[in-house]
Amino acid sequence: MAFGWIDGQADQRRRAGLVRTLRPRPADSPLLDLASNDYLGLARHPEVVEGAARAARTWGGGATGSRLVTGTTELHTELEHELARFCGFEAALVFSSGYAANLAAVTALAPHGSLIVSDAGNHASLIDGCRLSRGTTQVAAHADPDAVRKALRTHEGPAVVVSDTVFSVDGDAAPLAAYADVCREHGAGLVVDDAHGLGVLGDGGRGAPYAAGLAGAPDVVATVTLSKSLGSQGGAVLGPARVIDHLVNAARTFIFDTGLAPAAAGAALAALRLLDREPERAARARAVAGELHTRLTAAGLEAVRPDAAVVSVRAPSPEGAVRWAAECRAAGLAVGCFRPPSVPDGVSRLRLTARADLSEGQIERAVQVIGTTRP
Amino acid sequence: MAFGWIDGQADQRRRAGLVRTLRPRPADSPLLDLASNDYLGLARHPEVVEGAARAARTWGGGATGSRLVTGTTELHTELEHELARFCGFEAALVFSSGYAANLAAVTALAPHGSLIVSDAGNHASLIDGCRLSRGTTQVAAHADPDAVRKALRTHEGPAVVVSDTVFSVDGDAAPLAAYADVCREHGAGLVVDDAHGLGVLGDGGRGAPYAAGLAGAPDVVATVTLSKSLGSQGGAVLGPARVIDHLVNAARTFIFDTGLAPAAAGAALAALRLLDREPERAARARAVAGELHTRLTAAGLEAVRPDAAVVSVRAPSPEGAVRWAAECRAAGLAVGCFRPPSVPDGVSRLRLTARADLSEGQIERAVQVIGTTRP
Ligand SMILES: Cc1ncc(COP(=O)(O)O)c(C=O)c1O
Ligand SMILES: Cc1ncc(COP(=O)(O)O)c(C=O)c1O
Repeated sequence: MAFGWIDGQADQRRRAGLVRTLRPRPADSPLLDLASNDYLGLARHPEVVEGAARAARTWGGGATGSRLVTGTTELHTELEHELARFCGFEAALVFSSGYAANLAAVTALAPHGSLIVSDAGNHASLIDGCRLSRGTTQVAAHADPDAVRKALRTHEGPAVVVSDTVFSVDGDAAPLAAYADVCREHGAGLVVDDAHGLGVLGDGGRGAPYAAGLAGAPDVVATVTLSKSLGSQGGAVLGPARVIDHLVNAARTFIFDTGLAPAAAGAALAALRLLDREPERAARARAVAGELHTRLTAAGLEAVRPDAAVVSVRAPSPEGAVRWAAECRAAGLAVGCFRPPSVPDGVSRLRLTARADLSEGQIERAVQVIGTTRP
Repeated sequence: MAFGWIDGQADQRRRAGLVRTLRPRPADSPLLDLASNDYLGLARHPEVVEGAARAARTWGGGATGSRLVTGTTELHTELEHELARFCGFEAALVFSSGYAANLAAVTALAPHGSLIVSDAGNHASLIDGCRLSRGTTQVAAHADPDAVRKALRTHEGPAVVVSDTVFSVDGDAAPLAAYADVCREHGAGLVVDDAHGLGVLGDGGRGAPYAAGLAGAPDVVATVTLSKSLGSQGGAVLGPARVIDHLVNAARTFIFDTGLAPAAAGAALAALRLLDREPERAARARAVAGELHTRLTAAGLEAVRPDAAVVSVRAPSPEGAVRWAAECRAAGLAVGCFRPPSVPDGVSRLRLTARADLSEGQIERAVQVIGTTRP
């Protein structure tokens, strides 16, 4: 029977305690949120919400076509200019998601005959970009510039090194400056995904490439998402204008996808302007992460020192992690729960996000709940 | 130098007259639009716009996380229920784009060792899904059930046949019923992309699978986009509940992507309810397409008889197509212009979309402009 094989997989998942189900949330959830990627607490900021509503009123519910046909509005262009300027890059190109932006950057910059060196901790969207591209991929050990160097040495011709700036599972940062040095030794391009850096790292949240002095460099391309610190949806590729022009002509997830909805562009633009005006939000997110880590560690929990706004806490097993997250939820706290197959190393963990708008009392309450529910 | 090779590609494109550039449109464009995919003219309908604005106010600018963490709101679930019911399927799963929905459906339903038979005219997102999947792909001649049968005969084990319902370039329909018959002979699943069918084909716009009596069948999965007839952004997979549960657990573009923005979900839901209330919109889009075709043919132009709301007109060359579209634009008419490498057969064409809200006078004007500007 068609699709018959999926029942066997479903059984296996059930037996392994790895079944995923959707849990719809109401608009006025009473839970304290340490699970979302709304790092700056902007998704429900009145200016962001009004940015979305105003854009829908002015431009309509959708972009109505590919960016190359009817899907580019002056709003998209405005967002691209302001994003590029804020992050310190020459040009930007907006996509319907960060996932699509990553697929575009990797596939369009790794042609037939090229080498991609990909950090072992990279996000699924970068990995899918590698698999879709016509280049050959070598996976390098996580956060290891020497491993990248070794891989680059095996190859003549175009090469790119691809890495998250902040790894989504553990929240650790990539050695960006060292990656850039290695790339320059070999004439390779550097493509970094700043999904978890924008709004959190760098002066006023300008992102990890800016913080590392790499923004605007001719051999560096960054991708960002509008769906985390900017509280919206969408993604962008930032880089030299000639690279952006190349993407317009060559990136399939740009050419064959409907443009980002005006409401999403409007919300992201409003969030960007807020961040520009209130740069202290970025530092506050980092401080909250540091405080969460200090207190969790003091409570005897095994937490990774955060380089940005993600705090990862080790759990004993997939089942233990699921139970732990469920008990947190029962106590009024939403936390992320990462387990196989969504973690590269098979280690299950709770994943906490340090929102800039958490109060001291909320941080204390979160740590207390996590401590008392530990398996 | 890093990215040095892209300059050579840019030169080649320039010499071939194939450079693509973005043309930002203002909110109040004076052009008559026959280029967008806003088939029912709903993108700027007040109810759709208010659906977006209200959802942003109620739920915020973004979904804030993966659908599996914080990104599923009750609004997403409502949209999924109403989409499934409207199109006649058991269940639905909403994605951030139609592109992401297609990647999900193909990759999750074509495991290692399986065969994918893919119609040669399929959309880029289905092709990328084939390339990302662990199965083996055989491309079958366009709209040819015998070619599909031959391909299925070469394989033992799980198999899927993948096809657009309405092909995006020429607007011709796939032989869905024949594809389903061939699938059933071989126990294969059928995965169809109804991006250009939803809102246009089937009773009241319920889509091509509904029209073919295939909606709700245990061996049929459909994908749709919210970005065309529904005037918004996003996509969905429709199918048996067990298949949808499988996608929740296995589809990377579901698990590792931020949920669709509430405003986009709200706009699509409002459009769906409008369509449910005003089923005549679908028939009107088809009638407009038929009339465009009749008049263009009467004017001596070579146009493909439309099976839905896309009318394709043959152009003599890529440069001729570009010039033709530019002259239409200069005369106040926006038309699509498809040319290599975005067309599978190398034939350049103007692509017209028949919006349900075009008046007789607008249709007449469009045909007149296209006729007088022909190369
Ligand atoms: C590191 C990283 N890159 C890319 C993405 C994808 O971005 P988006 O959700 O906007 O598609 C995510 C998460 O969603 C991510 O964590
Ligand atoms: C046939 C077809 N499938 C899928 C898509 C992708 O949908 P979306 O633009 O919503 O990502 C498109 C066009 O955009 C299309 O024409």
